[in-house]
Amino acid sequence: MTVPARGAEALTRMFQPRSVAIVGASDDPARISGRALRFLREAGFAGGLYPVNPRRETVQGLRAYPSVADIPEVPDVGLIAVPAAMALDAVRDCAAKGMAGVYVFSSGFSEAGVEGAKAQAEILRVAREAGMRVLGPNCLGAFNSEIGFFGMFATSLDRGLPSPGPVAVVSQSGAHGQHIAYMARQRGLGVTYCITTGNEMDVDAAEVLDWVVRQPDVKVVMVYAEGVRDGARLVSALKTARALKKPVVFMKVGSSAAGARAVSSHTSALAGADAIHDAVLRQYGAWRAVSTQDQVDIAYACAWGIYPASGRVGLVSVSGGGGVQMADFAERFGLDAAPMPEGARAKLREIMPHAAPENPFDVTGQIVNDASLMERALRVLCTDTDYDVLAGYFTTVALDRGATGRLRDAILKGTEGHDRLIVLCMLADPETVRAYEEAGFLVYEDPYRAMAAVAALRFFAESFARAEEAAAPLPPACARPGGPLDEVAARRLLAEAGLPVLPETLAASADEAAAAADAMGYPVAMKIVSPDIAHKTEIGGVLLNVADRAAVRAGFDTLTSRARDAAPGARLSGILVTPMARKGVETIVGVTVDPTFGPVVMFGLGGVFVEVFRDVCFRAAPFGVEEARAMIPETKAASLLAGARGAPAADVEALAHALAAVSRFAAANAHWLDSIDINPFLVLPAGEGALALDAVIVPSPDAPGDAADEERKAS
Amino acid sequence: MTVPARGAEALTRMFQPRSVAIVGASDDPARISGRALRFLREAGFAGGLYPVNPRRETVQGLRAYPSVADIPEVPDVGLIAVPAAMALDAVRDCAAKGMAGVYVFSSGFSEAGVEGAKAQAEILRVAREAGMRVLGPNCLGAFNSEIGFFGMFATSLDRGLPSPGPVAVVSQSGAHGQHIAYMARQRGLGVTYCITTGNEMDVDAAEVLDWVVRQPDVKVVMVYAEGVRDGARLVSALKTARALKKPVVFMKVGSSAAGARAVSSHTSALAGADAIHDAVLRQYGAWRAVSTQDQVDIAYACAWGIYPASGRVGLVSVSGGGGVQMADFAERFGLDAAPMPEGARAKLREIMPHAAPENPFDVTGQIVNDASLMERALRVLCTDTDYDVLAGYFTTVALDRGATGRLRDAILKGTEGHDRLIVLCMLADPETVRAYEEAGFLVYEDPYRAMAAVAALRFFAESFARAEEAAAPLPPACARPGGPLDEVAARRLLAEAGLPVLPETLAASADEAAAAADAMGYPVAMKIVSPDIAHKTEIGGVLLNVADRAAVRAGFDTLTSRARDAAPGARLSGILVTPMARKGVETIVGVTVDPTFGPVVMFGLGGVFVEVFRDVCFRAAPFGVEEARAMIPETKAASLLAGARGAPAADVEALAHALAAVSRFAAANAHWLDSIDINPFLVLPAGEGALALDAVIVPSPDAPGDAADEERKAS
Repeated sequence: MTVPARGAEALTRMFQPRSVAIVGASDDPARISGRALRFLREAGFAGGLYPVNPRRETVQGLRAYPSVADIPEVPDVGLIAVPAAMALDAVRDCAAKGMAGVYVFSSGFSEAGVEGAKAQAEILRVAREAGMRVLGPNCLGAFNSEIGFFGMFATSLDRGLPSPGPVAVVSQSGAHGQHIAYMARQRGLGVTYCITTGNEMDVDAAEVLDWVVRQPDVKVVMVYAEGVRDGARLVSALKTARALKKPVVFMKVGSSAAGARAVSSHTSALAGADAIHDAVLRQYGAWRAVSTQDQVDIAYACAWGIYPASGRVGLVSVSGGGGVQMADFAERFGLDAAPMPEGARAKLREIMPHAAPENPFDVTGQIVNDASLMERALRVLCTDTDYDVLAGYFTTVALDRGATGRLRDAILKGTEGHDRLIVLCMLADPETVRAYEEAGFLVYEDPYRAMAAVAALRFFAESFARAEEAAAPLPPACARPGGPLDEVAARRLLAEAGLPVLPETLAASADEAAAAADAMGYPVAMKIVSPDIAHKTEIGGVLLNVADRAAVRAGFDTLTSRARDAAPGARLSGILVTPMARKGVETIVGVTVDPTFGPVVMFGLGGVFVEVFRDVCFRAAPFGVEEARAMIPETKAASLLAGARGAPAADVEALAHALAAVSRFAAANAHWLDSIDINPFLVLPAGEGALALDAVIVPSPDAPGDAADEERKAS
Repeated sequence: MTVPARGAEALTRMFQPRSVAIVGASDDPARISGRALRFLREAGFAGGLYPVNPRRETVQGLRAYPSVADIPEVPDVGLIAVPAAMALDAVRDCAAKGMAGVYVFSSGFSEAGVEGAKAQAEILRVAREAGMRVLGPNCLGAFNSEIGFFGMFATSLDRGLPSPGPVAVVSQSGAHGQHIAYMARQRGLGVTYCITTGNEMDVDAAEVLDWVVRQPDVKVVMVYAEGVRDGARLVSALKTARALKKPVVFMKVGSSAAGARAVSSHTSALAGADAIHDAVLRQYGAWRAVSTQDQVDIAYACAWGIYPASGRVGLVSVSGGGGVQMADFAERFGLDAAPMPEGARAKLREIMPHAAPENPFDVTGQIVNDASLMERALRVLCTDTDYDVLAGYFTTVALDRGATGRLRDAILKGTEGHDRLIVLCMLADPETVRAYEEAGFLVYEDPYRAMAAVAALRFFAESFARAEEAAAPLPPACARPGGPLDEVAARRLLAEAGLPVLPETLAASADEAAAAADAMGYPVAMKIVSPDIAHKTEIGGVLLNVADRAAVRAGFDTLTSRARDAAPGARLSGILVTPMARKGVETIVGVTVDPTFGPVVMFGLGGVFVEVFRDVCFRAAPFGVEEARAMIPETKAASLLAGARGAPAADVEALAHALAAVSRFAAANAHWLDSIDINPFLVLPAGEGALALDAVIVPSPDAPGDAADEERKAS
């Protein structure tokens, strides 16, 4: 018996099988255990089909095998449609046979409590030992419509089997996975793969995503997830997708408190912090859909494979209101309904002397009587403008049995030879819509949804264009600190990591303090440093704007005596001398270690902004300077940094370099880090840099020398 | 000839006519001029039908009249379907006949340029003289399906005539109005009225809204507007709707720069400032829809007439993912998926021992085999919880021909005798959906859209419940100031209007300053007041924390000599003495006079918050304290005022009273006011009040004694 490969090859055998065993296959084609076989037969699956049922000679007209062992070849995949109590034996039989993988349809495992989790673990042990992969348990299976393989018992397949096409669906939820596939089909989209991962005891959605984006026929993937089991694997799959220019439209649920409660109660997946999931998906080029409708709308747009080079959109309509709506929605979704170029204006004036030759351009209801107006207007938009997207709004004109043919001819002729993305918004019969789609147009009922989809196409265009930044090498990891770091130690670590800090000296004497201040230049700030004095300001332990040498010497004495008076037993580390910080924009830079994605860098405006407005953004570490630059406009910090209220523009380059540096530091020290809080991180005027003024670095509470640390040391 | 009433009675005759003339009626039922007659005949309109066509004996089989004068009775309404050049004569004929109103379908008027605007004005003159109302021109007409009256030439009516029902549509855009009506019909909603107002030379959308909400059969109105011609009339119509508990779902387009450009180029309507339109719609109880789909979704929900008493929503699903989605969307739209009560938990545990008895509750795919699980779960939700809304997600189960009947029985039995709003989310055949709707359930495909609609129902419930506040009487109007007010005069005006200000004295001598300070208590602030010195701080013209009598006397001399030194010729009004302001939350309170809605009060956090975050909200003036209280949580100010970062809670009652007072002041002085800017308006800790620290009041640039002023004086 050969042990099959654990990786992509096994998945290929599982989702492109040449032969299938159905363990527990029922003769009743309406039962869960009978459905997959029925669908496989209906679809004309050309490979081997081996129902296993010890109680019958035949199942649904096929010869039944009393056991897996009796099957005359080694099937690529086994579908296990037996009650939970019998699943382990079935898995063992399939493993013994040497199958690449099994789908465990059965429920009653980790989702059902402790006993179920134990049974699941045992299945996993058996499968792992044999090198066999497992989809599920508690999953709905998967289909590959290209080869008529329907290893799935979805109710919606009763309404007809999907045709192959550009779409793949990957879903943790079985019910919702087939729901998405059904909606895509309703929208006229071919769906080649739908793969549901259920409890994900072995194969998870990320691994399936990585496999499915590599399939040449797949042009767009819809993912539905309640939790992410392995953040690194998901990131890796998203990077694969981006490198192959395959858009991933991702619906991640569980963002609400009640939703997260439900997720943890019904699957074993971690909901994770929603804002971080959101940021990571964006960072690695996946578009997060807000609803299933949104997801299908965007996948539909992606199926055409046209990713516009800019968000400049030219708009034409048959009603003023339609044009205005498109313009509103374009702006709402960040597109640019830029003014009509002068050359085009002149030509539009010739076509309709009374109409304003603007963008949006309103051909008016005259279209019903004279469709050539639309043809001519579209020709102008195609030849005399540089809009990368053209969108037309036709309300109900295509419902008019007289006008619909004239409208189609006008649109086809007017856009002949075009190379733009053209989106039509109309109410129309399905056959009318199909005809437009076949001619290369995207068709939406609602311009709101159309513009949302165009915005997603633009997002993918930018994401595909952004070559992955060559990651700067990580700095060497630091030794895990023995405990919390004092501020001086924290700043020193950050300075070593390449973050800008003020020069500072911890002076043990008035002479040392004065010498340090001389070197720094005046004025300076002076501060008591003591592990035993937390609130320095309250005891007068901070002196600002100390102007000269004499004042520094005097200040040293003042501070040390204040420390002695206020806290007689306190250990005094010394008096810290730093130059006075200049004026700048106060931001906050932080690191949190997410249980799913590891160290994540946070950035936002400092002070009350963080607390009141929660105006922060995140990126998984490490990342480069380009990615760091992209963080800044995600918060309102951008407008302050650009120089609001007459202030000079701030040094955003220094900020971006610092963000990238802190991300590298966090990635290098993820094994011991719990959090970093640099607040304020002061961004000085352009050319003057930035400063990590205060920093708190907290090591994780794990005992020093834990497993990860040991592993690290060994490597 | 009797002159018909200009108000609601005329509109009743126009939209519930007993007889109709069609001027320019064509024998060709496909032409614009032939369509209305065709629809009227198809619908079996029972009143008088009088085609006017001098060139034919009959039109579409009916006797044609050579002229309006030849019609044997006085039709209530005339439909004018002639080219623009002939419209004036037709209107004149209808006016001479004594009709209540006409619909002018013809285009080529104000939307087409100066000549068209002139022709339109002439039509208006003729109609006004005769006391006849005009719908349009450049409109699509209107229908009243209750009586089979289709005075409209919409293309979508070719696809069948709407049935009467709870919905009315009021639209400035003809094309979009019929589009909305068609979508409502597609959704299974009866549409009694669809009225399009076109150029609104006379009858506008607000007046139609006011009329249509008073019709007993109308339960919900969808309005589509590009601009608001008369803000006061719209506000009045919205108040009527709210008093009658008729929801208004309003789509106002033209929010974007390009959209506003298109609006002004294709109609005469003013787009207005979008944020203010938004605020006014909310203030008077209209829900602003973001898209046509959204609008129809919400109108559909309103058609059931169930407005839940709370946003507490109980969720049940057949898939974990479905439940999580509903919970996420509920939170997104401000609903409360509150935890399952203990009693219900116990009963749910009995039904499904392995499932978590949470909200959302997942009945799982077992529903397909055992629908009674759903019945029992729903019964628990209906009898053992106090959720005012129940929502279920059934993905594709209703597509399963075997399961759909069992599911329906389970849902009907489980909810028997319920009195909640119950929303079902499912993919299903139209006949299945209809059956649920007839049993009183709302059905949506997508839970996102369902939860958005429930949120709108909650908005209406709150709006209907809020009795209109008895408006406090307005203060007497002030005389229009001769020019810009200095800060002392501005504060004095506001103090008279009931706003809290610090006591202040403009001292002419050191003695006066000292006496004033004695009366106020120390420390005080002192400041140069001069119309010729703009930047007081720069010349050292402000002294803070002046501690005692002697320092005040010395300060007076210091400031007067600084003023003399810095600006030798400056007129010195005196030295202002005020107590030092205490610490509080800096907010901004402003007034702007909107061209559509008149004076509007703005509120938000002060300083950089306004400029960077634009975190402000608006209300049309005047309004009461309750409305003012509702403003505060619309901005992030609420969390700071509640005492963020360990600060004491602020005196929001004082703030609310100040907002109401400034709204009354603004309303009373709208005839001369351009803007008010109270920045900062300092909100002190609870019980300590608030302070208008600095204020700028700008009169409008109109010459004193302008028409509005004169009118006011005369009244």
